[in-house]
Amino acid sequence: MSITRTAATFAPPVMEARRWIEGVTFAENRPLINVSQAAPVEPPPANLRKAMADFVTTEDSAHLYGPVLGNDNLRLELAKQISAHYRAPVEAWQVAITSGCNQAFAAAISAITGEGDEVILPTPWYFNHKMWLDMSGVRAVDLRTGDDLLPDPEKARSLIAERTRAITLVTPNNPGGVEYPAELVHAFYDLAKEHGIKLLVDETYRDFDSREGAPHDLFAQPDWDETLVHLYSFSKAYRLTGHRVGALATSPALLGEIEKFLDTVAICPGQVGQFAALWGMQNLSQWVAGERAEILDRRAAIAEGMPALEEKGWKLLGLGAYFAYFEHPFDMASDELARRLVSEAGILVLPGTMFMPEGDEAGKRHLRIAFANLDRAGIGQLFQRLQALAF
Amino acid sequence: MSITRTAATFAPPVMEARRWIEGVTFAENRPLINVSQAAPVEPPPANLRKAMADFVTTEDSAHLYGPVLGNDNLRLELAKQISAHYRAPVEAWQVAITSGCNQAFAAAISAITGEGDEVILPTPWYFNHKMWLDMSGVRAVDLRTGDDLLPDPEKARSLIAERTRAITLVTPNNPGGVEYPAELVHAFYDLAKEHGIKLLVDETYRDFDSREGAPHDLFAQPDWDETLVHLYSFSKAYRLTGHRVGALATSPALLGEIEKFLDTVAICPGQVGQFAALWGMQNLSQWVAGERAEILDRRAAIAEGMPALEEKGWKLLGLGAYFAYFEHPFDMASDELARRLVSEAGILVLPGTMFMPEGDEAGKRHLRIAFANLDRAGIGQLFQRLQALAF
Repeated sequence: MSITRTAATFAPPVMEARRWIEGVTFAENRPLINVSQAAPVEPPPANLRKAMADFVTTEDSAHLYGPVLGNDNLRLELAKQISAHYRAPVEAWQVAITSGCNQAFAAAISAITGEGDEVILPTPWYFNHKMWLDMSGVRAVDLRTGDDLLPDPEKARSLIAERTRAITLVTPNNPGGVEYPAELVHAFYDLAKEHGIKLLVDETYRDFDSREGAPHDLFAQPDWDETLVHLYSFSKAYRLTGHRVGALATSPALLGEIEKFLDTVAICPGQVGQFAALWGMQNLSQWVAGERAEILDRRAAIAEGMPALEEKGWKLLGLGAYFAYFEHPFDMASDELARRLVSEAGILVLPGTMFMPEGDEAGKRHLRIAFANLDRAGIGQLFQRLQALAF
Repeated sequence: MSITRTAATFAPPVMEARRWIEGVTFAENRPLINVSQAAPVEPPPANLRKAMADFVTTEDSAHLYGPVLGNDNLRLELAKQISAHYRAPVEAWQVAITSGCNQAFAAAISAITGEGDEVILPTPWYFNHKMWLDMSGVRAVDLRTGDDLLPDPEKARSLIAERTRAITLVTPNNPGGVEYPAELVHAFYDLAKEHGIKLLVDETYRDFDSREGAPHDLFAQPDWDETLVHLYSFSKAYRLTGHRVGALATSPALLGEIEKFLDTVAICPGQVGQFAALWGMQNLSQWVAGERAEILDRRAAIAEGMPALEEKGWKLLGLGAYFAYFEHPFDMASDELARRLVSEAGILVLPGTMFMPEGDEAGKRHLRIAFANLDRAGIGQLFQRLQALAF
């Protein structure tokens, strides 16, 4: 009996964490602090919601199939904005729209790999990347990062083998939060190009990078689209998680392959999400700048709170985007700790074990705190509860 | 060099057909008749559009992630409606919502099969089914139908082998139009159950079946969910193609596996589509009945037009749902004929070659006419143009 695609991987971590709080009651003076989700919990701004309402009411095309690779107007606008942000010319026919960034990754992997191939994935990894590789019959080759959570290109070089087809980076990183330096991303690009493999760069959290301007120079490289597959999401910047709209940028030839996958798995991205992404890009840049400033302020609050937490033995390994990646001080595996934090501290958080190969020791010491939905007061409360822990 | 997943299959036929009309000008007195698309070209009714507009404006959850397997209220309502339509109890935890019916098929196959497995597919097939099997490393075993386009369970029995994991039926059939008799569907169910494999039944066009009541009795079988995987789409009944919302019904255990795939490829179905499907089921049953009556009248118009077309050597092999499946009289392969029909008759239609294994002779004689978007006058014009053909 062969193993099925889905049997080759694990259950969705976010759904598992949701089950930990099912049936649990939290005291009124100590409500649940949910830092498990890397997603906005607030709806988009009112003007965007109004525009979406007008769209479904007045535009017939809102309800009909569109092109598999996304609407032309959205592809054009995205190409323009990528060109501006990265200061390098990117054309509409080099970008495509997907039903979320997870789907962009899945489509790209299906166009790049076959059964038995390998993809290099820095650990800690984003679990849906690992899940899709498992389901695709592709071996995820573990590129271990150190305490700075940055992957080493030379270590990656030593892992490239006959069946290696790609390296995947996530920057700013999920779960680690770290922003990869431009030179580091460039070194990985050179490495991939040298070996004729693809470099996937997932920039879902790009809009909350603390650095000004282009976070890397890959789009400015000659024939960048032969090596780079850039992945992006509109979900975070415009608060559109419920509408499933992401994107990728690469060569037209690879997009032609990706089109087969997207046609079969999605037919086309949802029209409301595509409209909202376009409207957002055209009207909400100032608003997004404000959102970014707010997230950066929350990030600063995490940094300010660290000294007190360090006194209790905690360490901050990475901080950025929506995430703080902690090493906890307890003599307890992080998955057990995470469950106990629900009942004993009213905190829902994902353990490092969810971002590492099974049984890995480092994962047992780590916790991912998705702090973006907590304001300064909320972060203060979170830190108080963490400091008060005594196991 | 291994072959990539997408390189194992062909380009999306619908996108290819779209390219045939790019740059072609059609005379004002002879506009294009597009019978290539099996999708409504009209938007949903105004009251549904209004409800959707209110939803995005007033409901914050419209914009946020929901559960991977779909919203509880929609799963509950769908289970109720399946129970009523098929006169058999189906529970909410036996159904899941997907981003369209293609995705339901892809998810189910990924939960049932692994590399090198086999799935029996009657031909002519629905091309996205074949494409997904190709991309999954699963061999589509060709169950040839006869001139009545009905698959033979005994022939299927002879095709079941060590690696066979499922049989897939589409009823009413795409591309053939034929409505499979309840006894035939039941015979396939018995066959699948006897061999411990799954029976996938894609009922995307269920709402336009000419028969009253339940089209089969599978949901009434004890432990039906251990054998049956029922696939459904909200796109046709409520004109929601642009919102990507479909569904499946099977065992909770298999849904647990399917959840892994959906989490990784979609995270969750779009909220606007889910809302619209729920609102449609709760408010539009009378409206859908009217839509069905209209489609059945158009189907009758096709039947009425046949005698004149038969005089020119055409044959009608199948008629139902959105489709008429024709055998053409010309000494020319259907893919060449389809291209010539664009320029010489102003008709866009998909050739039988798109629904058959490459090089197959039967496919060269067939055309699929997706007539649902043509009213009686349009069908009259289509028939006039077909009768006037002289190659």
